[in-house]
Amino acid sequence: MAMKLYDLDVSGNCYKVRLLCALLDLPVELVPVDFMSGAHKQSPLIDLNPFGQVPVLEDGNLILRDSQAILVYIARKWGGETWLPTDPEPMARVMQWLMVAENEIPRGPGDARLHDKFGMKLDIAAAREKAALILELMERHLQDRDWLALDRPTIADIACMPYVALGWEGGVPLGPYPGVSSWVERIKQLPRFIGMPGCEGSVPCPA
Amino acid sequence: MAMKLYDLDVSGNCYKVRLLCALLDLPVELVPVDFMSGAHKQSPLIDLNPFGQVPVLEDGNLILRDSQAILVYIARKWGGETWLPTDPEPMARVMQWLMVAENEIPRGPGDARLHDKFGMKLDIAAAREKAALILELMERHLQDRDWLALDRPTIADIACMPYVALGWEGGVPLGPYPGVSSWVERIKQLPRFIGMPGCEGSVPCPA
Repeated sequence: MAMKLYDLDVSGNCYKVRLLCALLDLPVELVPVDFMSGAHKQSPLIDLNPFGQVPVLEDGNLILRDSQAILVYIARKWGGETWLPTDPEPMARVMQWLMVAENEIPRGPGDARLHDKFGMKLDIAAAREKAALILELMERHLQDRDWLALDRPTIADIACMPYVALGWEGGVPLGPYPGVSSWVERIKQLPRFIGMPGCEGSVPCPA
Repeated sequence: MAMKLYDLDVSGNCYKVRLLCALLDLPVELVPVDFMSGAHKQSPLIDLNPFGQVPVLEDGNLILRDSQAILVYIARKWGGETWLPTDPEPMARVMQWLMVAENEIPRGPGDARLHDKFGMKLDIAAAREKAALILELMERHLQDRDWLALDRPTIADIACMPYVALGWEGGVPLGPYPGVSSWVERIKQLPRFIGMPGCEGSVPCPA
């Protein structure tokens, strides 16, 4: 039985799960969530995920929330040692960037997009400032590296890419960050890559 | 050669690393960082961690930032399968809570403490509201469980406990959350437990 993903097409967090499944050529049944009517805050979804967020993954009896935790699950179950190695050092290197995907990236480019694209009330100046901080850090980090954590793509790249690539929808384009921009393009060149609205595989991110 | 931890005594993020080392009976050399004079934003520390934060762990040639990633490293290197199992399902269950330790807990009780104890300028009403949300979720989750992720203590508990237990320093006491409070006490009863200022092993958290 295929995994079920409770999904929202414009969510970068849902997209990263869809993307990893595509890269691994894994079947996944998408269950669209009617976000605008608040379905994620009501039964039956709130019973699956009391945090009231998407994505939610269902694999048999297992229910998982949080996109980073879901990437870890899929990588460990079907990705061998490739996408998330289990040796302490490489695993910790991947973890460092999964935490950036959970913290600095949503607080920066993620929040800026929520404000501009979805009208969420938040401190947009603070979000843009945080976006600049994390993008400068990533730019320096990627100066002499192709991938964030290891010498190959891992779930660190999959976790961090979406809201960085979508930043232009929140007034945070990648023009000033050529290293980050090239890294996004490298991900788009991976076999079986799929895009999402605002981050299509066939076009570069707006500069 | 023992690991080196660049450390700040009042940091819950540094404390969680010290605590895991104590529970595992691992030697670790503490290097106190002069936070008040901004040593973490200057050379040599900023060269070790461009994010300008503590803790930073040095183990031989390996330098790691982010407390959750450091817990993963230590658990994988010295904790066997006990503190962070590598099977997909239990690992993902631990990850879900490591992500809460990186996101909801610092944005809630963590930020409230930064405001009240250290005078950081931030939206204290929003921080207290987020604190109530995550503590209510944890309270419900812990109603029929002793530990957050599995049927035994894992790094999920170590990662989430400090800023929850220190919440009273930010006007977020645990009185309304008896399940959370009991969980903190269970952690304090673990063999070789060590406390920190505001979260001593010998006294319950202020209600």
